[in-house]
Amino acid sequence: MPRTLIKDLHDHIGKTVLIKGWVSVRRDQGKMVFFDIRDMSGAVQGVVLPKSAAIDVAKEISIESAIAVEGSINKRPEKNISEGKANGDIELQIETIEVISAAQTLPFDITTPLHLDTYLDHLPLMLHTERTRDIFTMQHSILEAYRSSLRRQGFTEFMSPALVGGDAEGGSAVFKVDYFNDASAYLATSPQFYKQIMVGGFERSCTVAKVFRAEKSATTRHLSEITQMDFEMGFIENEREPMRVLEQTIKDTVAAVGEGHPEIFERFETQIPLVPEEIPVLTLREAQKVLGVPEEPDLDPEHERALCAWAKAEKKSDFVFITRFPTATRAFYTYEDPAEAPYSRGFDLLFRGLEINSGAQRIHDHDTLVARIRERGLDPLKFSYYLQAFKYGMPPHGGSSTGLERFTARMLELPNVKEATAFPRDMTRIDGRLSE
Amino acid sequence: MPRTLIKDLHDHIGKTVLIKGWVSVRRDQGKMVFFDIRDMSGAVQGVVLPKSAAIDVAKEISIESAIAVEGSINKRPEKNISEGKANGDIELQIETIEVISAAQTLPFDITTPLHLDTYLDHLPLMLHTERTRDIFTMQHSILEAYRSSLRRQGFTEFMSPALVGGDAEGGSAVFKVDYFNDASAYLATSPQFYKQIMVGGFERSCTVAKVFRAEKSATTRHLSEITQMDFEMGFIENEREPMRVLEQTIKDTVAAVGEGHPEIFERFETQIPLVPEEIPVLTLREAQKVLGVPEEPDLDPEHERALCAWAKAEKKSDFVFITRFPTATRAFYTYEDPAEAPYSRGFDLLFRGLEINSGAQRIHDHDTLVARIRERGLDPLKFSYYLQAFKYGMPPHGGSSTGLERFTARMLELPNVKEATAFPRDMTRIDGRLSE
Repeated sequence: MPRTLIKDLHDHIGKTVLIKGWVSVRRDQGKMVFFDIRDMSGAVQGVVLPKSAAIDVAKEISIESAIAVEGSINKRPEKNISEGKANGDIELQIETIEVISAAQTLPFDITTPLHLDTYLDHLPLMLHTERTRDIFTMQHSILEAYRSSLRRQGFTEFMSPALVGGDAEGGSAVFKVDYFNDASAYLATSPQFYKQIMVGGFERSCTVAKVFRAEKSATTRHLSEITQMDFEMGFIENEREPMRVLEQTIKDTVAAVGEGHPEIFERFETQIPLVPEEIPVLTLREAQKVLGVPEEPDLDPEHERALCAWAKAEKKSDFVFITRFPTATRAFYTYEDPAEAPYSRGFDLLFRGLEINSGAQRIHDHDTLVARIRERGLDPLKFSYYLQAFKYGMPPHGGSSTGLERFTARMLELPNVKEATAFPRDMTRIDGRLSE
Repeated sequence: MPRTLIKDLHDHIGKTVLIKGWVSVRRDQGKMVFFDIRDMSGAVQGVVLPKSAAIDVAKEISIESAIAVEGSINKRPEKNISEGKANGDIELQIETIEVISAAQTLPFDITTPLHLDTYLDHLPLMLHTERTRDIFTMQHSILEAYRSSLRRQGFTEFMSPALVGGDAEGGSAVFKVDYFNDASAYLATSPQFYKQIMVGGFERSCTVAKVFRAEKSATTRHLSEITQMDFEMGFIENEREPMRVLEQTIKDTVAAVGEGHPEIFERFETQIPLVPEEIPVLTLREAQKVLGVPEEPDLDPEHERALCAWAKAEKKSDFVFITRFPTATRAFYTYEDPAEAPYSRGFDLLFRGLEINSGAQRIHDHDTLVARIRERGLDPLKFSYYLQAFKYGMPPHGGSSTGLERFTARMLELPNVKEATAFPRDMTRIDGRLSE
């Protein structure tokens, strides 16, 4: 008999079906045994009646075992209907059960909250919970909606490299790789140079890229390996154009996940984010006035949270742009118009208290870029491949970079970004813990 | 004046427009200067007449400069129409030219074939050519079509890690990374373990993942960093189910790029690949009989080419599956049914002479997997995170992995897979050459 997916059971009322899935719940009531069974498409309640050939097997099955079940799909009597629950009006009367893959006894009740380290140690098991699957279903949809929106806006996606040849920016927070013949390589801290190079050919480029940060920092926000969703666009007038593209991408993404997953927002007791027609924009100085704090070159996490609270209360927005940071605090390739000095054309996007995106107009003139590299004490020779793109008609351009894990974490208001990473790497952990 | 994209010029006949783009060609005819100008959307011919205010600037502009041009869109006289060419029936009469970003003199004629090393050294410049952009436009579309097809088939996409904690499989071809506190990490050679772990929760998982190979091999097929498009699916009967999913994905991808880019296939003088209703399947032994060669445990590259020629001639297919390789030649997690020993449930997919995909049914039983790890002389303790997934109801499952660069290279019949990689890394190259 071919397998029927649980979402299609309604088409088989009164008939015998074969379903395959996992045992979420087993309730042994002595004479009868009830099961909640789930597959990739949904869940259904099954019952093994006293006279069923499956009754002995049913009493032995462990939670989270993979099983194949044959039985008939019956309408539930009116009084037993679970309103508002998928398949709440039907029940599977189980005739045979095959245990495809028996689960060992679970080490703890997986439906109760765990300490983060215990949770991460057991992620392969925790994927059996609805909460964990919800997080990565949401992430899958964010990823797809974000890329789709950029594609509709004319961006060509490319694969940005993870291995890079030099520790060009001179930061200490870079992982070193033993390469061939005693050469060293490094892990990319950003797809920045490569997406700019692509702009020289395609005008609009985007990439979903892994980036690596060797920061010795153990906060809830730091990971060694993260995913950035980047775009870069040419022939712009100023940073407002990438900000508008980002705004459209955020709108499209929020609309897609709001429409696709209302039940996940409900289960996480959070709301679909508010995105007004225009996301509010504050210069850094305006932001500091709103906060009533003195002029400083950057915002600290507490300020980011307070500004988001302000944007939500005053502008009905879960997002707020901050612009005009001092050039000295931004990456060397950030564009500064002499009339606007010492402020640059960079911007950050805050979402529910956290910076999830950073962007800017970039320097496009070759000689200005070389001069800026020298000013920062770096060696232009180490940038020669990147600089090549600027020799041949690089248009004014800009773009931005969104952290997928941060975006996912704030979407569901998770306390820790590590929960929004299927396989988080940090100072103490790669899969298991490093020091144990 | 707002910018008009070149693809939209037909809506502006008789009107004045502002376009921005690059100078592909400049033909100075003494009194008049003709330009071919391109942007992300298309190309158009422009002319600067003798009395135009732009004539002096026009005579100085270097090829590949980025310019902004104002002028009027005119219908060409009947005799000047270029049939079958986009915008072949209109011409831009240029009134003003602003050089946004002047190109330096090109180091060579970028429209003629180059030695591969010279080509790769100048990739940022070569992105200005139609040929190079065609390759990465095709790759972008393959990537998107492949993922879309898997999404439609119910797969959840996740981000597989690049940093892994142990050199678990004991291969020498693994890059080592200096991690925190004197710990070592390694670069992933495959997303295999992680997609299997995801199957434990999602039943169907997929990922586009960077993988890294430290093989000291300098053939046209070897790269240090490649992109794999992977999927894995649970509750299967045997390897035929992932083969069917792969077949559907290949069909959808070929249909999408065939429909989307007929002009690229034309420019590369190749055909849209042939995919019959059922891609032919040969066991390794059958393949060796077709070739008239003795029984060996694997195929060599020459055999792969000959089998593809056979499939094309006999089955009207540019693709052919090879199945039933000896278990000993496949990865330790490959499923072997005792009745089928010593052959495994692995498969390869060949495309135009090259293996582009490898897949299998996998072992799903925890104890069998542990025994197989031991048989291969490996330490199960080093696999404990991975093995955790097999303790809790791992269903029978299988999947496959397609190399994006190889798929792209054979799609356009490129002589070298490095041309199908925007930023190739190999023994001698990361961006520039390593030893120079």
